[in-house]
Amino acid sequence: MLTLSLIGIGCGDPEQLTRAATRAINTADLILIPRKGTAKSDLADLRRTICADVLTSDTTRIAEFDLPVRDAAEADYRKGVDDWHDAVAATWSQTIASHLAGEGKVALLIWGDPSLYDSSLRIARRLDPLPTIEVVPGITSIQALCAAHALPLNDIGEPFLVTTGRRLREGGWPQGVDTVVVVLDGGTAFQSLDPSGLHIWWGAYLGMPDQIIMSGALAELSARIAALRQEARERHGWIMDSYILKRRP
Amino acid sequence: MLTLSLIGIGCGDPEQLTRAATRAINTADLILIPRKGTAKSDLADLRRTICADVLTSDTTRIAEFDLPVRDAAEADYRKGVDDWHDAVAATWSQTIASHLAGEGKVALLIWGDPSLYDSSLRIARRLDPLPTIEVVPGITSIQALCAAHALPLNDIGEPFLVTTGRRLREGGWPQGVDTVVVVLDGGTAFQSLDPSGLHIWWGAYLGMPDQIIMSGALAELSARIAALRQEARERHGWIMDSYILKRRP
Ligand SMILES: C[S@@+](CC[C@H](N)C(=O)[O-])C[C@H]1O[C@@H](n2cnc3c(N)ncnc32)[C@H](O)[C@@H]1O
Ligand SMILES: C[S@@+](CC[C@H](N)C(=O)[O-])C[C@H]1O[C@@H](n2cnc3c(N)ncnc32)[C@H](O)[C@@H]1O
Repeated sequence: MLTLSLIGIGCGDPEQLTRAATRAINTADLILIPRKGTAKSDLADLRRTICADVLTSDTTRIAEFDLPVRDAAEADYRKGVDDWHDAVAATWSQTIASHLAGEGKVALLIWGDPSLYDSSLRIARRLDPLPTIEVVPGITSIQALCAAHALPLNDIGEPFLVTTGRRLREGGWPQGVDTVVVVLDGGTAFQSLDPSGLHIWWGAYLGMPDQIIMSGALAELSARIAALRQEARERHGWIMDSYILKRRP
Repeated sequence: MLTLSLIGIGCGDPEQLTRAATRAINTADLILIPRKGTAKSDLADLRRTICADVLTSDTTRIAEFDLPVRDAAEADYRKGVDDWHDAVAATWSQTIASHLAGEGKVALLIWGDPSLYDSSLRIARRLDPLPTIEVVPGITSIQALCAAHALPLNDIGEPFLVTTGRRLREGGWPQGVDTVVVVLDGGTAFQSLDPSGLHIWWGAYLGMPDQIIMSGALAELSARIAALRQEARERHGWIMDSYILKRRP
């Protein structure tokens, strides 16, 4: 019997860790930690910090592994992702096999929540043999963003849409909603919208010591956020940001 | 200086509590706990259980108060909600004033996350004097639902919509999305949809000892979930459920 726990660890602040996550980390026989390139090494470091911080079990082993790189030359996006998921699954399987004799509890520490824009659940389903999969929810970047702004995400009884930067850029303001959450924006998709009537609540490095937030009328802030984002990204070598847009009559 | 912390405590399982929540509970001078009617007393009990469980500070006082009741006879829904928020704010102010001399740290334990379909942030803005407002995110029912089903919420790079039962019933399947999350459904709005091509992931009492989940083709499960829901609701005296619908070609 092999169990794989995908443990949400929050999106940057070790204080976001839940009791269930702490428990799951401590009951694991093996924790897999991906080595990342240097640019985002702060992120791999959160995983190490958390392990160092909460791990009290001395039977838990930690195994670092190199994450395969996605083939950027593959023209077919779906196929590129598919092949990459296969490659990651193979790496997990090998790392698990070299540490456990076919049974035990393996844990992966997942940024934010494992259910939100994360591929680990899909990769886990490709493992051979297929383990029992267990998910421990974690605080997402959307929640960290709302908390930092003390912002109610939805209007009373109203829906909201969660989407990606690419979608917003390609499709414009989505139909039927006045609140849109944007994650995975490699750029500043908000600049592609007509800003009139729109408000933005933006945040980068949420939950981290360098957290930056800004909110107000999009017309006033659009260029300022773009400049701030550019400057912060150069300084850190990487940026992770997300934002909420609301249409106000 | 008065600070009000809205502390997300998760949606039923005390293990969902974060370290930040535990810390915020312990640094409060006063914790306000609403007394609820008997039907949902299990919910008020989670708050008491959590306090009993994590509170180590002996300077923190707990004050229970009766939550004003919304005037169901008010024909104008917005106005009804507005008046109710005013009444709740007045009750909070009174309870705070009778325990603290104008300064200190007040905490409210919020079901799930304070930013998601919860009125506390809006009520807090009506307090007089206006305190500094602080939000501690908590695991939401949507996350507990995904975790229970080990389900990735979004498809790769695709958006999802979060909406209410009433909206789904009135508006049908929303445009432009293949994934819809439904909360606050007093009934079974999924029964109002043409089920062909739809899959459902349903859950009630998520994170609680009586958690029930069910998933599959909506055409096959629609009536079964409705019957199960009805039966569970009668047995408990109340039900809290939510679900995710996905359209699969
Ligand atoms: C691959 S998704 C992973 C989301 C993650 N599973 C979660 O629950 O937040 C990465 C995106 O999440 C957002 N994000 C994650 N962490 C963030 C942070 N600390 N600050 C701002 N945005 C963040 C960014 O939009 C980023 O592009
Ligand atoms: C007023 S909203 C509050 C949402 C809460 N702030 C959160 O973060 O989950 C209440 C709705 O959340 C969902 N919900 C909350 N707790 C739940 C649970 N334990 N199981 C299933 N659904 C739940 C139900 O759809 C319910 O109607």
